[in-house]
Amino acid sequence: MTGLAVEEEPSAPSAESPRVEFQVEPTSYQHWRLDFDGPIATLTMDVDEQGGLVPGYELKLNSYDLGVDIELYDAVQRLRFEHPEVRTVVLTSGKDKIFCAGANIRMLAGSPHPWKVNFCKFTNETRNGIEDATANSGQTYLAALNGTASGGGYELALACEHIMLIDDRSSAVSLPELPLLGVLPGTGGLTRVVDKRFVRRDRADYFATKSEGVGGKKAVDWKLVDEVVPRQKWADTVAERAAELSQNSTRPDDAHGITLAPLTKDRADDAITYDHLRVTLDRATRTAEITIAGPQADAPADVAAIHKQGAAFWPLAVTRELDDAILDLRTNELELGTWVLRTTGDAARVIAHDDLLLANDDDWLVNEIVHYLKRTLKRLDVTSRSLIALIDPGSCFAGSLLELALAADRSFQLFGVFEDVAPDAEPAAITVGAMNLGPLPMGNGLTRLQTRYYGDDAAREAAEARVGDALLAEDAEQLGLVTFAPDDIDWDEEVRITVEERGSFSPDALTGLEANYRFVGPETMETKIFGRLTAWQNWIFYRPNASGPAGALRKFGTGQRADFDRKRV
Amino acid sequence: MTGLAVEEEPSAPSAESPRVEFQVEPTSYQHWRLDFDGPIATLTMDVDEQGGLVPGYELKLNSYDLGVDIELYDAVQRLRFEHPEVRTVVLTSGKDKIFCAGANIRMLAGSPHPWKVNFCKFTNETRNGIEDATANSGQTYLAALNGTASGGGYELALACEHIMLIDDRSSAVSLPELPLLGVLPGTGGLTRVVDKRFVRRDRADYFATKSEGVGGKKAVDWKLVDEVVPRQKWADTVAERAAELSQNSTRPDDAHGITLAPLTKDRADDAITYDHLRVTLDRATRTAEITIAGPQADAPADVAAIHKQGAAFWPLAVTRELDDAILDLRTNELELGTWVLRTTGDAARVIAHDDLLLANDDDWLVNEIVHYLKRTLKRLDVTSRSLIALIDPGSCFAGSLLELALAADRSFQLFGVFEDVAPDAEPAAITVGAMNLGPLPMGNGLTRLQTRYYGDDAAREAAEARVGDALLAEDAEQLGLVTFAPDDIDWDEEVRITVEERGSFSPDALTGLEANYRFVGPETMETKIFGRLTAWQNWIFYRPNASGPAGALRKFGTGQRADFDRKRV
Repeated sequence: MTGLAVEEEPSAPSAESPRVEFQVEPTSYQHWRLDFDGPIATLTMDVDEQGGLVPGYELKLNSYDLGVDIELYDAVQRLRFEHPEVRTVVLTSGKDKIFCAGANIRMLAGSPHPWKVNFCKFTNETRNGIEDATANSGQTYLAALNGTASGGGYELALACEHIMLIDDRSSAVSLPELPLLGVLPGTGGLTRVVDKRFVRRDRADYFATKSEGVGGKKAVDWKLVDEVVPRQKWADTVAERAAELSQNSTRPDDAHGITLAPLTKDRADDAITYDHLRVTLDRATRTAEITIAGPQADAPADVAAIHKQGAAFWPLAVTRELDDAILDLRTNELELGTWVLRTTGDAARVIAHDDLLLANDDDWLVNEIVHYLKRTLKRLDVTSRSLIALIDPGSCFAGSLLELALAADRSFQLFGVFEDVAPDAEPAAITVGAMNLGPLPMGNGLTRLQTRYYGDDAAREAAEARVGDALLAEDAEQLGLVTFAPDDIDWDEEVRITVEERGSFSPDALTGLEANYRFVGPETMETKIFGRLTAWQNWIFYRPNASGPAGALRKFGTGQRADFDRKRV
Repeated sequence: MTGLAVEEEPSAPSAESPRVEFQVEPTSYQHWRLDFDGPIATLTMDVDEQGGLVPGYELKLNSYDLGVDIELYDAVQRLRFEHPEVRTVVLTSGKDKIFCAGANIRMLAGSPHPWKVNFCKFTNETRNGIEDATANSGQTYLAALNGTASGGGYELALACEHIMLIDDRSSAVSLPELPLLGVLPGTGGLTRVVDKRFVRRDRADYFATKSEGVGGKKAVDWKLVDEVVPRQKWADTVAERAAELSQNSTRPDDAHGITLAPLTKDRADDAITYDHLRVTLDRATRTAEITIAGPQADAPADVAAIHKQGAAFWPLAVTRELDDAILDLRTNELELGTWVLRTTGDAARVIAHDDLLLANDDDWLVNEIVHYLKRTLKRLDVTSRSLIALIDPGSCFAGSLLELALAADRSFQLFGVFEDVAPDAEPAAITVGAMNLGPLPMGNGLTRLQTRYYGDDAAREAAEARVGDALLAEDAEQLGLVTFAPDDIDWDEEVRITVEERGSFSPDALTGLEANYRFVGPETMETKIFGRLTAWQNWIFYRPNASGPAGALRKFGTGQRADFDRKRV
């Protein structure tokens, strides 16, 4: 170690900093432009150097921080819901000679470890969302690299279906994280290079050590990009390719988008309140209790009524609220390590909404709503918090909302009723619905029921055979759908002990445990990115070789070399 | 943080400590007994409390350290080669009421980070080897838990085909790492519970937080063990089950084992020399150069001659040497971050030995040799060192030895000859052989050629079609079998730059990069254990919540609680 003093203290938001808000709108974008030309949208990255989310760094060369990525996430979402006419999204840069330099290094170097990890998780989710739009929404992303794409910039391109690179003798694609920063390309780059683009592993290794990257013909030969295009033909070729990609879209010709109006959200220190969702923050027990209210009205009559309700349609409204709540809690409430999941309302209405969606899954908006719910539940799966579902009288864990209980690490269903409180209540029940049988797969490609009963098809089939039945605690436990079914005498103590115990364990070990247990069975590019790549990156981020005073992340740009502990681990 | 002083300094071997040797013999075992009764062998764990590999801890309650596991590895190997008559291996304990308490906590708490990680890697490899013996060697492992199996003790049982637990109202199986130590069960426990034994994920979660574990009927109901047996029926039932398991074995009735004689090994500070393998240690460039000599004689005539040569048979001899060299370097030479792989000898003789093996793959000894080579190459794959293969004139990268080049992160093949040195030499060639087409799969279940050409079947088939051809650099590069093919003018500089550059990068980032790139494509239980579980464990091991002065690992047994940073990451 050189013994040099730390030049910059971590400056990214910490528990004491102002809260991060994830709700933005295109009219207030600081870093992106969204232009439309019939079926082609152009999403232009033009980062405001002075527009960092927190002080302490400049977003030079189209580098990004969480604030830039929040806008990108918003744009991807709005394109799907507000612009059904769009069939190709051209992702390009508003700067000259540079597409995007990746995550801002000074921001990363100055950030506390949890901030780094959470930032990478969110950016990964957004890139997976881009792939999801291409695969499931008829909106194909085209990366038009009109300049160098390095690090996270190239990883952003890797999430697109087709990558075009300008051929100007200087522009290249690169993953310079390892040679320059001593960390990994942590936003899926390593995984996508070999598992998606099928770059040969020894070439991938070479590429990831060449900070200047690869451009021109070699970039095509090595499959790093799909084509290189001379500057004079650039605009025409991009337009041509965008038009071609839009040919295969399943998007309807005559659709009208809906408006994703701002959420009604009241954010206090001890509660977050939306229209259909409420979070209670209990700092004493380090618990967030998330209660989702089922539909307050019957399902609308038909698909036209869904379009008319738009963002007010309950499944969409509640998904948006859940999405925002997850992001808010994950980013702003690091010490609330346990999330208790509750529901309240009418199970039959939940199922009726589900059935309406599934009966109209050929409608573009319905398709968007179901995939958005899928993505939001996936966000829950990769959340590093313990998830406990409490199923009691008055709850409505049915169909799409039952997924919350199936996503939980453990679930409790009350056997009978609370005799002292409401002896005449209907006992708690859960209902398996069609929404549990396929439309909402996890990142491992399995449904949550398939994951739950992995290796035991008979038990899964027995549970699936009960679709539509209101299952009381005894049945649900017998079928294996809930973990425990205490009666009202034991309920309070069993729940209390679980929550207290969870709060007493090492938060790090819980994160590792949950990351392993939630994704049993097959692996996909997604589980590799969140399981393997992220875990290695977390370790590397935490090591002095990257983040110590003499580590590569901290020394970048100082003109001094990092001083490494050379021991291989 | 409590601010308490560190009570114990790390005491496990470091770079300055005496070297660890992996060669042992049954007559000198300190911790295990091996008994034979016809087709049934009993491997009894009876750890010598005072027999720790390094000072500073007592191996109470059949807890283990690296020394205990080195003996276990030796026993598993010798059973396969020296005892072909054995069809069932009963793994049990020589202590009363305790099967095995897992890895010794004081040893772990006192060990430097690289020691912890390397220890876990070796123990994982040995447990995978137990599963390999069951799957491929006709030697089925039966865990006879005559007392509590906790932590690594239960993980050892999980590697066995059948788990019996004594039902005495106190014995249980448990994974107490998370609640007691703030770390994960890191020897495959988390993965095997859900992916091998199909324990439901919420039950697995509960189980991994209950330090006292689960015994009796519940352990069977939850699939944690296969059966519980009352004490009075214990011995008879174990014998019965062992006999049953031996029925299905493919082992021959009349075979005679071979003796794994001690290796000839000269270990100096700058070189390790065996009969067929030499390692040169260059501390200036932080490089180990491993040179393997091909067969010095023609392949023997038939399988009888293989048996007669026994441990001197070149493929077995060289595999044993490579195995020992990998373990020695991994454990004792942490700062040698790059391994340069070379061969020298006659390619035709290598292929002839390969062909002899493959033509006799129904012979038990041949089967053992091929699977041992497979396991040793897998050891190379999970080694956290950069692997560079150099293919020059006089080398014999053919068939089984070509796997070394295919395992490497990069390979260089000389185009032509060294004009200044040996202008009349035969140019460097590589030869694809039958051994590259299936018998030596990686942990991901693919051959190294399938891994190399993942997503490009046409390129793989083109390479595979050249079986038997001596491929010069131009051809090999064209086919994608080597990374680079410089001529003699560029060779020295290209190789030097690669080695120097590799040595300049962050060792941690290289480890993460290689762990991601070497295992493209499908995942298996093995890749999950080495990729995902290990990565999370490495991170957790390095966090103050586990290993800091107030961390759970350091506080265990002191009567004081760990003091956790509660932030979730």
